Amino acid sequence: MVQPFTFDLVAQDGHARAGIFHTPHGEIRTPVFAPVGTQGTVKSLTPSHLEEIQANLILANTYHLYLRPGDELIAEVGSLHSFMNWPGPILTDSGGFQVFSLAGIRDIDDDGVTFKSHVDGSTHRFTPERAIAIQENLGADIIMAFDECAEPYERAYNEQAMARTHAWAERCLRAKTRADQALFGIVQGGIFPDLRAQSAEFITSLDFAGNAIGGLSVGETKEEMHAILETVDGILPENKPRYLMGVGTPDDLVNGILRGVDIFDCVLPTRLARHKAAFHGRGRINIGQAKYATDPNSLVEDCSCYTCENFSRAYLRHLISVKEMLGSTLLSLHNLHTLIHLAGQMRQAIIDGSLDAFLKNYFQQPSSHIEQ
Amino acid sequence: MVQPFTFDLVAQDGHARAGIFHTPHGEIRTPVFAPVGTQGTVKSLTPSHLEEIQANLILANTYHLYLRPGDELIAEVGSLHSFMNWPGPILTDSGGFQVFSLAGIRDIDDDGVTFKSHVDGSTHRFTPERAIAIQENLGADIIMAFDECAEPYERAYNEQAMARTHAWAERCLRAKTRADQALFGIVQGGIFPDLRAQSAEFITSLDFAGNAIGGLSVGETKEEMHAILETVDGILPENKPRYLMGVGTPDDLVNGILRGVDIFDCVLPTRLARHKAAFHGRGRINIGQAKYATDPNSLVEDCSCYTCENFSRAYLRHLISVKEMLGSTLLSLHNLHTLIHLAGQMRQAIIDGSLDAFLKNYFQQPSSHIEQ
Repeated sequence: MVQPFTFDLVAQDGHARAGIFHTPHGEIRTPVFAPVGTQGTVKSLTPSHLEEIQANLILANTYHLYLRPGDELIAEVGSLHSFMNWPGPILTDSGGFQVFSLAGIRDIDDDGVTFKSHVDGSTHRFTPERAIAIQENLGADIIMAFDECAEPYERAYNEQAMARTHAWAERCLRAKTRADQALFGIVQGGIFPDLRAQSAEFITSLDFAGNAIGGLSVGETKEEMHAILETVDGILPENKPRYLMGVGTPDDLVNGILRGVDIFDCVLPTRLARHKAAFHGRGRINIGQAKYATDPNSLVEDCSCYTCENFSRAYLRHLISVKEMLGSTLLSLHNLHTLIHLAGQMRQAIIDGSLDAFLKNYFQQPSSHIEQ
Repeated sequence: MVQPFTFDLVAQDGHARAGIFHTPHGEIRTPVFAPVGTQGTVKSLTPSHLEEIQANLILANTYHLYLRPGDELIAEVGSLHSFMNWPGPILTDSGGFQVFSLAGIRDIDDDGVTFKSHVDGSTHRFTPERAIAIQENLGADIIMAFDECAEPYERAYNEQAMARTHAWAERCLRAKTRADQALFGIVQGGIFPDLRAQSAEFITSLDFAGNAIGGLSVGETKEEMHAILETVDGILPENKPRYLMGVGTPDDLVNGILRGVDIFDCVLPTRLARHKAAFHGRGRINIGQAKYATDPNSLVEDCSCYTCENFSRAYLRHLISVKEMLGSTLLSLHNLHTLIHLAGQMRQAIIDGSLDAFLKNYFQQPSSHIEQ
């Protein structure tokens, strides 16, 4: 039996990597896209649906589950795996990003963050130790260090937030007690390459099981994102998985994988689905438009997902028009399948040595096919 | 090959019947409970879900589909079967009940009904001929005569509505052109046994492929409903299926089957699901209650549905509390499974000659276990 949290690098092509990360709930075959189950459910989908689209790793949010139903309740009835009936690997974030972006009035100091719940306005406090304790109650396979996510363009704030993130990283490592969970560190530093390099050097000097790149896809340009990934790629160790947090689109996945990223997550596929939009090649289509009312074709011609194999654009447009829940379910299945399948195709291409051919094919699709 | 719309009576026990109704899209094994897909989708469920709970016959609503997306659009892209990707038998109502209960200002005359759409207030008119033409565009296996559903306790109105229903029944039969659809007549007459008998005599004198009992479960007592079923049971021919429209609860199913009914439909299972309630034995439980927050048990101990086999009350209560769509999906699966499985169990008991034992077991469950 393989030691948990070993990362096997199966193949490489340029900076792109195909690997296997071993967890107590099974192998994560990277590169991988993880659907987000914010409140312990990937919105509108059953675990059977997730198996059908070959989801491998699922993400859940510590901030939301801490508030409702509470991490202690989940620990009392078992673990997040049994609670949401997901037998495979789960990753929980630390709550940091959500506290900084979602919560009400908040007060940050060197020890932690005091914030008000977006649900009922009650006051709560997260510290690195608390974030780890909550994640230990939830019981995911991969847990994240508590970090401070700053505005990407403010240098002084990024220096301060990075220093805090580094101090908190050390405290998270010390606070961790469970051997069956892998703790990942998070590289911060905004859009500043020197800060990102400094952060990557520091975080990788600590004993994390994997490394994450935080604070991206929050307003910076694609060029800035790519430059940071390239900076960090040269510093992160090859023998540990790399996780690009909260990203993204089909293009983001491809560009991230080409710059050495192994793990991705994003709410975009399910959020788009609730807003009538479906991934289509490198772009997307808005299936709510009247022009699809009698369109007998599937969303995407050669897509092998349940939605595309069984339903017409005309039917999907009808569901969206009359606000039937099934519309969200079917678009979510398609959008998640698209990213999971894309990561899987790139994995296979890296292993087969056919990445160039794959990319040529991928990038010849118009990126301008975007209809909102 | 069996002639379409033949009804084979497989077994009888007292007035209870087990049969097979042959349709162009497969056999309907009766007694059967049909989930309602009002707008061409059983709310929150995929066709895969419906297969999983062994749904046999699905109902869809002519009024809703006529308004959106339009029966002509559905005919243009194929049929309701292909549109909603349901390969099995489908039944459409005539639109009558919905026009009388849902639509805005309406004006009834002997020729038909003028009404305003609940969607946009636009004016529309249904006649018997129009109701048949729309249902022929939709293409269901079983279509219904256009009837007038009166207030159950108003005798004069019921006499008038029954007379219209009878005249319209003859017009529907004359208007019908498709040989691959079975047209069912509808018995009306409110809570008045003599009117019900008169209506049953008249409707069964016409050449319908099956007979329905309309205008029940609209405010009358259970005793009144049972009396009417018994009156009608003695008049309806044995060699045609009997459909009790818009009913109901587990008890209604059992009591209807015992009085010779073969087919049931109702929105209750999916509507309850959207209001946090789950069938439990002869009653129901409201899973949104705080007392279920840490309950590790399934909704119903010995239930074999996907929801009960895979999720705790604690998880379902969490989903409901945070308003996640999956809550509706999982409760709908359970509630529909309960009625479909109940009809299937009674069918088997009728065939096996074990109906008495089944009923003894069923009725010893408390009916008072109802929590709203």
